[in-house]
Amino acid sequence: MSKKRLMQSPVCPVPIQSRGQIIMGHGSGGKLSHELIENLFMPYFDNPILRAGNDAGVIDAIAATKLVVSTDSHVVKPLFFKGGDIGRLAICGTVNDVAMMGAEPLYLTAGFILEEGLDLAILERVVSSMCAAAAEAGIKIIAGDTKVVERGKADGLYINTAGIGRMPEDMRIDGSQARPGDVVILSGPIGDHGIAVLEARGELGFQAEIQSDVAPLNQLVQAILHSSHQVHVLRDPTRGGIASSLNEITRQSEVGIYLDESAIPVRPAVAAACEMLGFDPLYIANEGKLLAIVAAEEANTVLTAMRSERYGYESVIIGEVEAEPKARVLMRTSIGSTRIVDMMAGEILPRIC
Amino acid sequence: MSKKRLMQSPVCPVPIQSRGQIIMGHGSGGKLSHELIENLFMPYFDNPILRAGNDAGVIDAIAATKLVVSTDSHVVKPLFFKGGDIGRLAICGTVNDVAMMGAEPLYLTAGFILEEGLDLAILERVVSSMCAAAAEAGIKIIAGDTKVVERGKADGLYINTAGIGRMPEDMRIDGSQARPGDVVILSGPIGDHGIAVLEARGELGFQAEIQSDVAPLNQLVQAILHSSHQVHVLRDPTRGGIASSLNEITRQSEVGIYLDESAIPVRPAVAAACEMLGFDPLYIANEGKLLAIVAAEEANTVLTAMRSERYGYESVIIGEVEAEPKARVLMRTSIGSTRIVDMMAGEILPRIC
Repeated sequence: MSKKRLMQSPVCPVPIQSRGQIIMGHGSGGKLSHELIENLFMPYFDNPILRAGNDAGVIDAIAATKLVVSTDSHVVKPLFFKGGDIGRLAICGTVNDVAMMGAEPLYLTAGFILEEGLDLAILERVVSSMCAAAAEAGIKIIAGDTKVVERGKADGLYINTAGIGRMPEDMRIDGSQARPGDVVILSGPIGDHGIAVLEARGELGFQAEIQSDVAPLNQLVQAILHSSHQVHVLRDPTRGGIASSLNEITRQSEVGIYLDESAIPVRPAVAAACEMLGFDPLYIANEGKLLAIVAAEEANTVLTAMRSERYGYESVIIGEVEAEPKARVLMRTSIGSTRIVDMMAGEILPRIC
Repeated sequence: MSKKRLMQSPVCPVPIQSRGQIIMGHGSGGKLSHELIENLFMPYFDNPILRAGNDAGVIDAIAATKLVVSTDSHVVKPLFFKGGDIGRLAICGTVNDVAMMGAEPLYLTAGFILEEGLDLAILERVVSSMCAAAAEAGIKIIAGDTKVVERGKADGLYINTAGIGRMPEDMRIDGSQARPGDVVILSGPIGDHGIAVLEARGELGFQAEIQSDVAPLNQLVQAILHSSHQVHVLRDPTRGGIASSLNEITRQSEVGIYLDESAIPVRPAVAAACEMLGFDPLYIANEGKLLAIVAAEEANTVLTAMRSERYGYESVIIGEVEAEPKARVLMRTSIGSTRIVDMMAGEILPRIC
């Protein structure tokens, strides 16, 4: 297991107070592209690899026996919401996907698709937020790309990130590793991100004090891995919520999962919003939560480790893994019945991440 | 220097003849997302890393002393043009950026932003083209992501790719390595890609028999590296054309570059289109050409090696590097005068890649 890495926070610069708007020329590959890189991206993302100014970043070989690679595009609408924004989301989403394999995220690439007319002040807010999230997660952005599309396309901006992490040879954390008898731990209340974005869209019809949970979970993952060698699955239940993530795991591992309805934490404001809108919080996106499936005998050790972490202090056991019924998630309800929790069929909350 | 890798072509499947359209639910992370992955992406991109079905791909450690990482988003309009399409572009663009560092591209990620209403048959054509280009380049797609945005956004689809390659420790090919006395080699005629896209938009006003040059250049790069140890810079002159790429190099290396106008190859149809539209082919995008800056005494050896390659048979020497004037590209014209070739100032051809 890798040694816990010291998070060395690069200091994000004081705001540059960018003015003006994105024009098509910023995507030309010519002077304006270079100015945008020099004046906006570089001050926030600066590091020697990026500063070399080539079309690709060169990194020293990563001391590991395996590498983990992931990618995510982010199209959240609106760009800013309580607790986060598209920039923080773009960093955390990919950091978390890499971390969920039991790997240590190290480097990210960032591809921007910008809409003509986008205020540079808005872009700077997003880039500044990416800088802060990257510092918190302890990762570096080592390659980037900017394209510009016409007004009316791209809702301001879309961001793609791809991430690389290192993983020890003996790590076998994977959706296929859940075993009968294992315990399912959830790192905190569900649905915060989805409902926070919905509120920012003005679609709730009331003011809810709900903040997105968007956060980098790599430190929480390292704490889990240090606490036990019996961690079988880690997954961040983003789009599709915990219902979809757990269904995926039951299929990959060919097991059943029983959840205890009364054990699943949902903040009152999220529960109220879901009831009003007819949503089931099990299907609402999270961006700072993880599911850990661990051997029963280690559950309390892992739980204790999780609860000592900033993004895990509300961790709880929500269910267990059974041999049957395979590829099914079942809920023991508070009234004593059992119901099937299926994967999400359609789309209840588009443009959530 | 790494041994030439045998390109093992995975066979792309016979068309699945996908029907229907993209709906918002395909971006939900639920059932429809999984169906899209299983029924369309997986048959074309299948490999054990992707099939594991986790949120990140796990790869064995790459035997190298350095890794090269790059990313590119692709927003070309229209999606299909003579000689290529957005899928081939998305693979080749990133393969080439990695290769230009003297590295061997190995793995790519692919992030799709799809427009609601996109015909699945169109998506399949693009994915099939990516499969063929990946096979030709000898790379694997090991992680992916799909998002869906509303009708009217994203022009059908945008594709981001990020790439990873391996590089030997002693490789020092980089925009900062051009030295006075070096020779500038260009791998073939310029401007084909930009003009082919323009024609596909119906903006030429006449039919030109111009095909995009979009191609993976990693084999050509390997041939160059095997021919000489005196290769200083490799760069693919995409957006901004050879004028912008050469200007970047003169800044990174603090040298001047003199070009010989009569030596720069431009196909007659491209020259005619440029003359009619008032464009300078030096600024038109290429997607299958490279600039190689090499020691003068090795120029002929490298040229011979390039000319024996599929994507290098039209290679020519177009200029040389001088100590002065620093950070300047100068053109010796056919009438005997010398003019400054600046970096592209605005944007003459938006949405070209």
